[in-house]
Amino acid sequence: MSALPNDFLHDATRLTEDATRPFPASRKIYVEGSRPDIRVPMREISLTPTKTRDGIEPNAPVTVYDTSGPYTDPAAHINLLKGLPALRAGWIAERGDSEPLKGLSSIYGRIRAADDKTAHLRFEHIRQPRRAKAGANVSQMHYARRGLITPEMEYIAIRENARLQELRESYEQAGYLRRMHAGQSFGAMLPKEVTPQFVAQEVARGRAIIPANINHPELEPMIIGRNFRVKINANIGNSAVSSSIAEEVEKMVWSTRWGGDTVMDLSTGKNIHETREWIIRNSPVPIGTVPIYQALEKVGGKAEELTWEIYRDTLIEQAEQGVDYFTIHAGVLLRYIPWTANRMTGIVSRGGSILAKWCLAHHQENFLYTHFEEICEIMKAYDVSFSLGDGLRPGSIADANDEAQFGELHTLGELTEKAWKHDVQVMIEGPGHVPMHLIKENMDEQLKHCFEAPFYTLGPLTTDIAPGYDHITSGIGAANIGWYGTAMLCYVTPKEHLGLPDKDDVREGIITYKLAAHAADLAKGWPGAQVRDNALSKARFEFRWEDQFNLGLDPDKAKEFHDETLPQEGAKLAHFCSMCGPHFCSMKITQDVRDYAAQVGADEQTALEQGMAEKSAEFKQQGAEVYRKA
Amino acid sequence: MSALPNDFLHDATRLTEDATRPFPASRKIYVEGSRPDIRVPMREISLTPTKTRDGIEPNAPVTVYDTSGPYTDPAAHINLLKGLPALRAGWIAERGDSEPLKGLSSIYGRIRAADDKTAHLRFEHIRQPRRAKAGANVSQMHYARRGLITPEMEYIAIRENARLQELRESYEQAGYLRRMHAGQSFGAMLPKEVTPQFVAQEVARGRAIIPANINHPELEPMIIGRNFRVKINANIGNSAVSSSIAEEVEKMVWSTRWGGDTVMDLSTGKNIHETREWIIRNSPVPIGTVPIYQALEKVGGKAEELTWEIYRDTLIEQAEQGVDYFTIHAGVLLRYIPWTANRMTGIVSRGGSILAKWCLAHHQENFLYTHFEEICEIMKAYDVSFSLGDGLRPGSIADANDEAQFGELHTLGELTEKAWKHDVQVMIEGPGHVPMHLIKENMDEQLKHCFEAPFYTLGPLTTDIAPGYDHITSGIGAANIGWYGTAMLCYVTPKEHLGLPDKDDVREGIITYKLAAHAADLAKGWPGAQVRDNALSKARFEFRWEDQFNLGLDPDKAKEFHDETLPQEGAKLAHFCSMCGPHFCSMKITQDVRDYAAQVGADEQTALEQGMAEKSAEFKQQGAEVYRKA
Repeated sequence: MSALPNDFLHDATRLTEDATRPFPASRKIYVEGSRPDIRVPMREISLTPTKTRDGIEPNAPVTVYDTSGPYTDPAAHINLLKGLPALRAGWIAERGDSEPLKGLSSIYGRIRAADDKTAHLRFEHIRQPRRAKAGANVSQMHYARRGLITPEMEYIAIRENARLQELRESYEQAGYLRRMHAGQSFGAMLPKEVTPQFVAQEVARGRAIIPANINHPELEPMIIGRNFRVKINANIGNSAVSSSIAEEVEKMVWSTRWGGDTVMDLSTGKNIHETREWIIRNSPVPIGTVPIYQALEKVGGKAEELTWEIYRDTLIEQAEQGVDYFTIHAGVLLRYIPWTANRMTGIVSRGGSILAKWCLAHHQENFLYTHFEEICEIMKAYDVSFSLGDGLRPGSIADANDEAQFGELHTLGELTEKAWKHDVQVMIEGPGHVPMHLIKENMDEQLKHCFEAPFYTLGPLTTDIAPGYDHITSGIGAANIGWYGTAMLCYVTPKEHLGLPDKDDVREGIITYKLAAHAADLAKGWPGAQVRDNALSKARFEFRWEDQFNLGLDPDKAKEFHDETLPQEGAKLAHFCSMCGPHFCSMKITQDVRDYAAQVGADEQTALEQGMAEKSAEFKQQGAEVYRKA
Repeated sequence: MSALPNDFLHDATRLTEDATRPFPASRKIYVEGSRPDIRVPMREISLTPTKTRDGIEPNAPVTVYDTSGPYTDPAAHINLLKGLPALRAGWIAERGDSEPLKGLSSIYGRIRAADDKTAHLRFEHIRQPRRAKAGANVSQMHYARRGLITPEMEYIAIRENARLQELRESYEQAGYLRRMHAGQSFGAMLPKEVTPQFVAQEVARGRAIIPANINHPELEPMIIGRNFRVKINANIGNSAVSSSIAEEVEKMVWSTRWGGDTVMDLSTGKNIHETREWIIRNSPVPIGTVPIYQALEKVGGKAEELTWEIYRDTLIEQAEQGVDYFTIHAGVLLRYIPWTANRMTGIVSRGGSILAKWCLAHHQENFLYTHFEEICEIMKAYDVSFSLGDGLRPGSIADANDEAQFGELHTLGELTEKAWKHDVQVMIEGPGHVPMHLIKENMDEQLKHCFEAPFYTLGPLTTDIAPGYDHITSGIGAANIGWYGTAMLCYVTPKEHLGLPDKDDVREGIITYKLAAHAADLAKGWPGAQVRDNALSKARFEFRWEDQFNLGLDPDKAKEFHDETLPQEGAKLAHFCSMCGPHFCSMKITQDVRDYAAQVGADEQTALEQGMAEKSAEFKQQGAEVYRKA
C-alpha cells in the first residue's frame, strides 16, 4: 500500500499502452554471458516464409539491438512505484570498492528528503546511496586500466554483436548476407567481433565510455565510442512552462522504446529533484543531466550568484541519485567570451551562457575550470562520466568553426587529459549548426585535440532556413558526422527552435536519428549492420508486407501509411503495391523474369545469357498470363 | 461559357486557398531584363526592424528564388480553364525556326481529340502545336552552340542571381553578409555572378540544360546544371488505384508552391492524355514524363507487345502537348539484364523492368537504344530534353554500385555523346539506394563517363530500414550528392514504398528536398546562398519570431509549431522561447552581455577584453534587473 495520494498514483504509475506494447512479430530474448546474471536483452523479429514455385522457404528471424528495457517484455512485471530491478547491484557490491552510505551526502538532497511539501510526489523506495570507499575509484575506466573485465564490459560485448556470429549460418541461408559492403571508416578500428577484451581496451584507452553510475544499478550497460555502433540520445525534461513527473517518466520510456540509447533529463522547472528520482529508478538506459541548470534554480535564476559550493553540492546530490553523465561546461573560459560578441548568434548553449555571465559578473575564470580536479574526485567516487559541454558551439551557419568554438574545443582536450589522469571517463560535446563541407573539420579537430575521446554532437544542422524541419536539417549532419567518427548523436525534434516536443515529435526525432546512426554504421562498415537492410529489402522484393513493416524502425507508421492507401487486409498479401498498380510493378516484373528463367529449367543467369530466340517465343506464347496468379 | 459539364468544372477549375495564398510578409516582384517581356518573378520577404537601445534599425527585405509561378501573385488572374499566359510565345515565334502545325501529328493525339467519350474532361483551349521547320533544330543547346543568347538564357541568369548584386549593399547594412563561408565544390566552377553568357556557355558545353519545349510557352525558364543552384523535382500522377484530373492540377500547383523546380507527371491510369494537357497548360515549371508508361497502357499492359511505332507516336503526342523532358531508358541493354538476376531487389525502375521484359520476350536489343538517333530527331524538333533513365538503378543497399548499374551508366554516357551530336539536351538519372560511403563514387563515375551532363538523382536512400521515413533516409543522400555535384534531386515522400502521397506528404517531401538542396548549395558555395540563413539566424537571435517563420521554407508549419506551445499572440513578441523559459534562454543572456557592454560605453569586444574588475562590480549592482524588461 502506497502512502502517495491517489490522484498522483493514478497519473504517475501508469504508462500508456502505446509505450509498452511489444513490437509486432517480435519477442524479447536474453543472451546469457559467462555467468547467469549476465542476461543481455535483444529483440528477435520473426519473418514469414518466402513462397516459391516449389513450396516455401523459411526466412530466419533477425536479431536487433534493443534499448527498450523490460517495458517491451510481456513477462516483466513493471511497477513504476518500485522501479526496475537492480540488475547490476551484485556486480557493484562484489567489487568491494564501494559502500552504502548512511544517508545522503548533499545538503540539498537532505533538505528535499525532509521536505513535507514535496512528500506527496516523492519516490518511495529510495535506496541507500553508494560511494567509493575512501581512496577507491569505481570508474569503468579505472577497472579497464587495471586489466579488469567487468560484467558490464562482457554485457556490452554481447550486446554490440547482436548474435551476428551465432546467427551467421541462418542469415546466410536466408540470404541476408549478400553483397555486404566494406565500409569507409576514416581511421576507426572496428572489430570483426566485439570481445569483452576489446571493450576493456577501448575504455582503458579513453576511446569509449560506459556511462554507469554505481547508484543507477537498474541500467542495462551500453557503450559510446567510435569503434562501436553509433548511439543516439533523446532529451526530455520539464520547464517552467510545461510538463509533470508522470509525463517525464512516460517520455523516458517512450524514448527508449524507439531507440534512445541514453536520455538526458534537461528539466529546469519545479521539483526537478523528485522528477529525476522517478526517471532514474525506472530507466534502463543511462541518464545524463546538466547540473548547472539545477544549480541556477537554487540561486533563483541569478547566474552571478552561483558558487562552487552550490554547484558541488548539486553534483553530489545528482551523483547519489544515479545520474550517469554530467554535461559540464568547463571549457567556457573568460578569454573566449569576447570572441562570441561579434557572432551572428552569440552563445546559444544554455549552460555556456550561464557560465559566460558568471565569468563576466565576477571577472574571474570559470569556476568549473578552476575546480576541475575536485570535480574529477566526485566523478570517480560514483563513476559519473564527463560530457564536456560545448558552451560556445555555433548556433548558426555563420558562426560555424570559428575561433571561439575551436578555442573551447582545445580546452576540452586539455581537460580530457586531466580527467584521464584520474581514470574518469570523458566524452566531448560538439556542434550545433555547421554547413556540410565544414563538418569533417569538426571531427578531425576533435579527434586530434581530444585524443579520440568519444564525440557527442547535436546534429549538426546543415542549414538554418527550415524551422519545423530541423530534425531533418540536423539528421543530415548527424549521419555525416556519425560516419566520420562521432560516437553519439543528440537528437533534434521537429519542434527545435519553436516549441516543446510532444510524443509524436519525440518519436519523429528519435527515428530520424536512429536512421542517421544506422546510415553511419553502414557507411563506416559496422559488422552485420547491413543484415537488417538486406532482410527488409528481401521482404520488400518478395511482397512480404508485414515483414517489411516489422523490420523497419517504426512498424506502426509503416503499416499506417500502407493502410491509408490500401486498407484491406488482402492488400498486404498483394503482389504489387498501391503506387503503380499491377501492370507497372517493377518488382513484380523482375520476379516474372526470374520465374520465367526458373520455369524454362535453367538458373536465371544461364537462361538469360543463352541465345534465347526459342525461349523468347515460348515466353510470348505464355504471354496471356504474363502477370501470373500466385 | 464553357461547354464542360458543371460538376467537372466545379472540381477542375478551382484550387484550394492553401495552394494559392501568398506567403506571409511576402510580395511577388518581377525583375525586368533587357526587354520588357523578360520579367523574372521572385519573392521578396519583408522583415521587421531590430529594436535597440537607441531606437530601431531596419532589416532589409530578402529576395528569394520563387518557383510558385503566378499562383502566389494576388495581381494575377488565374483561370485554369484557359491556362497560364504564354509568356514565351513571342520568343519562340520570333526565332522563326518553328511553325504552327495544322493539326496534331500523332495518331493517338488525333484519336483522343475526336473521342466523344472524353470530351467532357478535355481542356478546351488547346493551342496549335508547333514544330521545328524542316531541317531546323529548336533546342536551347543548338542556339547556345551557335552563339545565340536566347531570352530564356537571360531570364535564367537574372533568376539564379536573385538580385544578389543589386542588394549587396542593403544586405551588408542589415548584417546578412557576415562570415560567408567559402564552399567546397569538388571541381564545379560556380560563377560569382550568373551572366547570360555563362548560361549559354554551360548549355553549349552540355553541362546544363534548359528544359523548355516550344509547346510549353507558359513555363518560367529554369536551368539544371552543377554550376547553378541545386534543383528539385516533385512527382505527381494518378494511377489505376487513385486520383482525378482536378487533384493532379492541384498537386502540381501545390508542388510549385513549396519549391518544386520541375514536376514529373507519372500517371499510369485512365485519361492520362487529357490529364497531362491540363497540367501543362497550367504549369509554370517544366514537366517531365516517362513515355513508356503511356505506351504500355496503349498495348493493354503487355510489355512484349510494345513496338517502336507505338512508342514513337507517344513521343510525338507528348512533345506536341509540351512535355519538357522525357525519361528514356535507352541504357537497359540486353546484356546487362542477366547481371540483375542475382540482385537483392532485381530491377526496381518501372521503365527499366518494362524494357527488360520486352528485351527478354523478343531476345532483341532495347528498341530505345536501336532507335536512339530517331528519338533525337523528335527531341530537337520540339526541344524536349533527354532524362536518360537509370532503369537498372539499385533498389536496395545491397545492390548499390554493382556492375549492372555502372554498365548502364557507361551506356548512358555513350548516348549522351550521340544526343550532343544532334545538339539535343541531356541529363542523366541516378540512384536509388546507396550507403553514404558509396555515394561519391556514383557522382565521380557519372561526371567521368557522362562528361558532366547534369546528374538527376532519386535520393539516394542511405539505408533501407526506415519505411515511413524514406524522405529522410533519402534526404541525407540527396544533400550529399547535391554537394558532390548533382544538379537536380528527385524528391521522395514519407509514403515511398508504402502508398500514395497525400498533400501533406508532398509538402513534407518537397521541403525535405528543398532543405537538402539548400544545404548542398551552402556546402558547394553558391554565391549568396547563406544570406537567407544569416537573415533567419539574426531574426532568431533577436526574437523576431514572425521574421523567423517567414524566412523559413515553410512559414505555416513553423508558426503552427510555435503556437502549439505558446499560442498567445504576445508570445511571438516574447524575448525568450517556450523551450527554456526566461531564466535559461541563452540568446537572452548573450543579448544581456552585449547590452551590458554597450551600456558601459564600450563596444563589446573592448568591454570584454579590458580588465573588468570595476565593471564587474557595476554589473552585479545592476543585478536586480539582470533580465531587463524590453
